[in-house]
Amino acid sequence: MIERLAVIGVGLIGGSLALALKAVGAVGEVVGCGRTLANLETARDLGIVDRYHRDPGTAVAGADMVFVAVPLGQIRSVFAAIRGHLAEGAVVTDGASVKGTVIDDARAVFGQVPPWLVPGHPIAGTEHSGAKAAFAELYRRRQVILTPLESTDPGAVRRVEAMWRRCGAKVDRMPPGHHDEVLAATSHLPHMLAFGLVDLLARMRENDEIFRYAAGGFRDFTRIASSNPEMWRDICLANREALGAMLRRFAGELEGLASALDAEAGDELYAIFSRAKAARDRWISGE
Amino acid sequence: MIERLAVIGVGLIGGSLALALKAVGAVGEVVGCGRTLANLETARDLGIVDRYHRDPGTAVAGADMVFVAVPLGQIRSVFAAIRGHLAEGAVVTDGASVKGTVIDDARAVFGQVPPWLVPGHPIAGTEHSGAKAAFAELYRRRQVILTPLESTDPGAVRRVEAMWRRCGAKVDRMPPGHHDEVLAATSHLPHMLAFGLVDLLARMRENDEIFRYAAGGFRDFTRIASSNPEMWRDICLANREALGAMLRRFAGELEGLASALDAEAGDELYAIFSRAKAARDRWISGE
Repeated sequence: MIERLAVIGVGLIGGSLALALKAVGAVGEVVGCGRTLANLETARDLGIVDRYHRDPGTAVAGADMVFVAVPLGQIRSVFAAIRGHLAEGAVVTDGASVKGTVIDDARAVFGQVPPWLVPGHPIAGTEHSGAKAAFAELYRRRQVILTPLESTDPGAVRRVEAMWRRCGAKVDRMPPGHHDEVLAATSHLPHMLAFGLVDLLARMRENDEIFRYAAGGFRDFTRIASSNPEMWRDICLANREALGAMLRRFAGELEGLASALDAEAGDELYAIFSRAKAARDRWISGE
Repeated sequence: MIERLAVIGVGLIGGSLALALKAVGAVGEVVGCGRTLANLETARDLGIVDRYHRDPGTAVAGADMVFVAVPLGQIRSVFAAIRGHLAEGAVVTDGASVKGTVIDDARAVFGQVPPWLVPGHPIAGTEHSGAKAAFAELYRRRQVILTPLESTDPGAVRRVEAMWRRCGAKVDRMPPGHHDEVLAATSHLPHMLAFGLVDLLARMRENDEIFRYAAGGFRDFTRIASSNPEMWRDICLANREALGAMLRRFAGELEGLASALDAEAGDELYAIFSRAKAARDRWISGE
């Protein structure tokens, strides 16, 4: 049971955690914090937060659990703002999509990664944002990855784990660098490919016509290219090392596919396409 | 009004044309033809075809309209099989995703592209196949591209156009080479990217784990990687020139994105991502 939860950044991610915990009676009071007053008022009107403050230091006062759910580029300033304001025994976790930079931010602000900070990443989302997009079921049956360090307090990790389980999520642990490599492959690279492809087509002379003849496959393939450009710029920059490596590896794959086409190597193409179909069908059936 | 329609290949594409025309009373009799007896029996039981033959030459006898809806790799043998069996004044059209090879196949079999052959491509489909997947609404509000040559009989083009309009489709005309470039960009390249990405991840040592943490964005992005590998091998080979050029162009884009990451060029990434989002959102809102 969390007595008082402070949610810094009451958007889809932060707001949905509050709603999920409230729905199962796992939290006493929720205090919100954010930059946009209108969003905070919406959050209060919707019953996501019980009250709010504009200043993170004030918002975390007396909270036993703090969830930092702001864009990656703002994590460091939130850490700086809550420094010295946390209650004794408070645990802090976050929801950022890249863990390496969150750990760097913590080191820069606190001099070390504090034992009460449990870096985490709930792998869930929709294309909508803001408090009005939040809903209690967002994390149900979703994966949450926690990336504690050796110096992290095991009790703090258990409390964060328990919190996510109350939301219906499955919780795993892995080293932060490994998390960032896995997410580069399954999430950050696909976003880069979708953004890159749509931009390439939009820059082609005959782009109106090209989009005109796009069909359902293209719509699904490019859905993630309608994501927030600012958020994705920050994620890609924050994970630039792992993502850059995956991008170059995939560019090499494309050269291989182009050579197979040149050589009319139908067997090779068939092998690649069938392996891909088998892997995806297996994944979908196990989902 | 079509008196007798012969559908060579009674799958999703061929079967749906028959159902759509029957639904609006635009066809007298439908004769099916295919390699698999069980599928033809299903088609007859479902009322898609009124009768069927295994031999294309027999199936087209007396038909005033012939729709060839077999995989790309079988078009040439269908042309050879119907040669000399068509009724006087019969019009033949097809549904293949690449037009250049259909025209090559016609030249190889008939010595020239016959005036009664109207190469075409209905841009519609689902992930399902076979007669049981066919439905009358498949082409409603979808684009059909016809790629007649200078030598094509204008009356034949008009009859094919009228047929597709009766199914609720929008019909455009363009040169075959241009069709193949547009489809390389909007359909064939995305399929290559999705197949290529899933195969790359499946070949990575930690692939079980990678797929485990894949989320909704990855599911949509890779949906087309669950497509039929044989069909897509044929399409990619048939359009290898335009597709190879697009693949290499896109690989160059990825190198550019990787360099922008290396240089931490946030403004450049933001510009690419926002242009892509704007283009896609504009496309979706106009759909």
